[in-house]
Amino acid sequence: MDYLSVNNFLKEDMEKVKKELYSNLDSDVELVNEVAGYVLDSGGKRLRPMAIILSAGLSGYKGERSAKLGCIVEYIHTATLLHDDIIDGAMVRRGNTSANVKYGSDITVLCGDFLYSKAFINLVKDGNPEIQMILAKAANTMSEGEVFQLVKTADYNLNMEDYIKIIFSKTAVLFSSCCEIGAVLGGNNTTVKKKLKEFGKLVGLAFQMNDDILDFLGDQNITGKSTGTDFKEGKMTLPMIMLRENASKEENKIFKELITDSNFTLDKLEYIIVLMQKYDIKTKALNYVFEYVNKAKSILNSINIQHNFDNSNYKKYLEYIAEYSVTREK
Amino acid sequence: MDYLSVNNFLKEDMEKVKKELYSNLDSDVELVNEVAGYVLDSGGKRLRPMAIILSAGLSGYKGERSAKLGCIVEYIHTATLLHDDIIDGAMVRRGNTSANVKYGSDITVLCGDFLYSKAFINLVKDGNPEIQMILAKAANTMSEGEVFQLVKTADYNLNMEDYIKIIFSKTAVLFSSCCEIGAVLGGNNTTVKKKLKEFGKLVGLAFQMNDDILDFLGDQNITGKSTGTDFKEGKMTLPMIMLRENASKEENKIFKELITDSNFTLDKLEYIIVLMQKYDIKTKALNYVFEYVNKAKSILNSINIQHNFDNSNYKKYLEYIAEYSVTREK
Repeated sequence: MDYLSVNNFLKEDMEKVKKELYSNLDSDVELVNEVAGYVLDSGGKRLRPMAIILSAGLSGYKGERSAKLGCIVEYIHTATLLHDDIIDGAMVRRGNTSANVKYGSDITVLCGDFLYSKAFINLVKDGNPEIQMILAKAANTMSEGEVFQLVKTADYNLNMEDYIKIIFSKTAVLFSSCCEIGAVLGGNNTTVKKKLKEFGKLVGLAFQMNDDILDFLGDQNITGKSTGTDFKEGKMTLPMIMLRENASKEENKIFKELITDSNFTLDKLEYIIVLMQKYDIKTKALNYVFEYVNKAKSILNSINIQHNFDNSNYKKYLEYIAEYSVTREK
Repeated sequence: MDYLSVNNFLKEDMEKVKKELYSNLDSDVELVNEVAGYVLDSGGKRLRPMAIILSAGLSGYKGERSAKLGCIVEYIHTATLLHDDIIDGAMVRRGNTSANVKYGSDITVLCGDFLYSKAFINLVKDGNPEIQMILAKAANTMSEGEVFQLVKTADYNLNMEDYIKIIFSKTAVLFSSCCEIGAVLGGNNTTVKKKLKEFGKLVGLAFQMNDDILDFLGDQNITGKSTGTDFKEGKMTLPMIMLRENASKEENKIFKELITDSNFTLDKLEYIIVLMQKYDIKTKALNYVFEYVNKAKSILNSINIQHNFDNSNYKKYLEYIAEYSVTREK
């Protein structure tokens, strides 16, 4: 199975999501539509809308609301990307010039706000308080988590618990919300909602962990991103924590100095990558991520819902997305 | 009547608003509470919560929701201030170091998002779709309007219609929403809602116009703000439009050059202020604002709602706020 086959299975639904994404860009201030369109066009995988549609399908829901809610979460996700670009001072996003470089950080912050408010308008239209609360709380957790990550910048001693807290806020909470929303759409009981929510959380965590591994140890020709941006920005991530736990006392002394010194050079990055290769951090870290993915899959497989239509494909593709979170190379 | 007497009349309600404002700052990321608290502490007049409480009172509603909704709009307002400070690169806000200088623009943008999402959470808790939609649309208009203002930067030819559009988005839409929400709380008919909404819009426009007048022609010792920041940021405002319409062809030629040249000097500002004094722009502009205030007052006075309690004070103080929007000197 590959990404294309999921895309194929969801083709009709994803067309609806795409239509929603653009039909809402109806501001009479043309620049707003242009900037929002620029970011939405820039080749995201739209995994979050997929997660809603697949979870909804598994839960027995087939209707128009999953595409509309898919658009809403994609707006929220895009708004956070726009604001993150300002925070990180990113030059490039998904291989294109970032919005803040192309349009300026002032326009970028406002277009983020525009997308947040569009998401909110559409949530009010959708009219389900349970889903509204899931996404309001997710947005809240995301903003808190980003601040927490900034507080922990260049913190060599960052422990695993705080790392998980950061990546939960950054990626997993929204992904988890998508899967939970699918269950809500299907009108499922609390147990199914909890299971899909937990499934999404584990997949989201795995997805971000793999992202953090690829940042150091991915193939730049495949990822299309420059290597070591997390190190450059002083973010302690999974491969760094694992390196700290594996390296010798002497190596750790140097490693600590490199983390706490805010002057980035390619030499320093090179030193860290060589150390990571020495201790085979990539394999160790990926094995760690696989534990999350396997747990996610076992939760998914414990969900048994019977419908008047065959929903086995939805489960199969959710399982694929779980696997994709760790096997993807970009 | 003065500002203190409104404050006195609303003392109990405003205490409830204050309590709400702080009880929601419960993030386990302490810095988030600190930054949000810093901005909320910085001496805003809290006119928006007042507008809700007074409009609700006039409309016959006396209950806990007006303070909760007052907190929500103050959060939305504060979030826009935080994001505006990044856009304007403001050093000072309400006489204090601005949040983006004190905490950095990364933390500031995220704390804005935090307050937006808290507002959203509380709106979902409040559970009224009509009010949710009013505020979702207001937030949307605000972000669009700010982009429109940026598009129109240094536009010497800005016409009155576009100026009104900008200040509507910037200030009037949220103020108008507050007054409309009051009417919704009172369970009033469409006519009353429309009237209070229009009243709030006119007062909001007057408020922002006066702000723009004070920016050039206010007493710096009273306003506590430095003079000419709008000119510095290339914003065409009411006194500048009026100057353009009154100055000679020769003066306008120089004026146009000063507007379009982005290099700010005190000399240039001085030239403009002297011209404004020559043509008595302050009086002319204030007369123009009074037209809005008088129209607002006449709409207010056309509202007749009878309750089982005397609501005349609510109307009296709403009228006072309308007057205050133009008479205030800071």
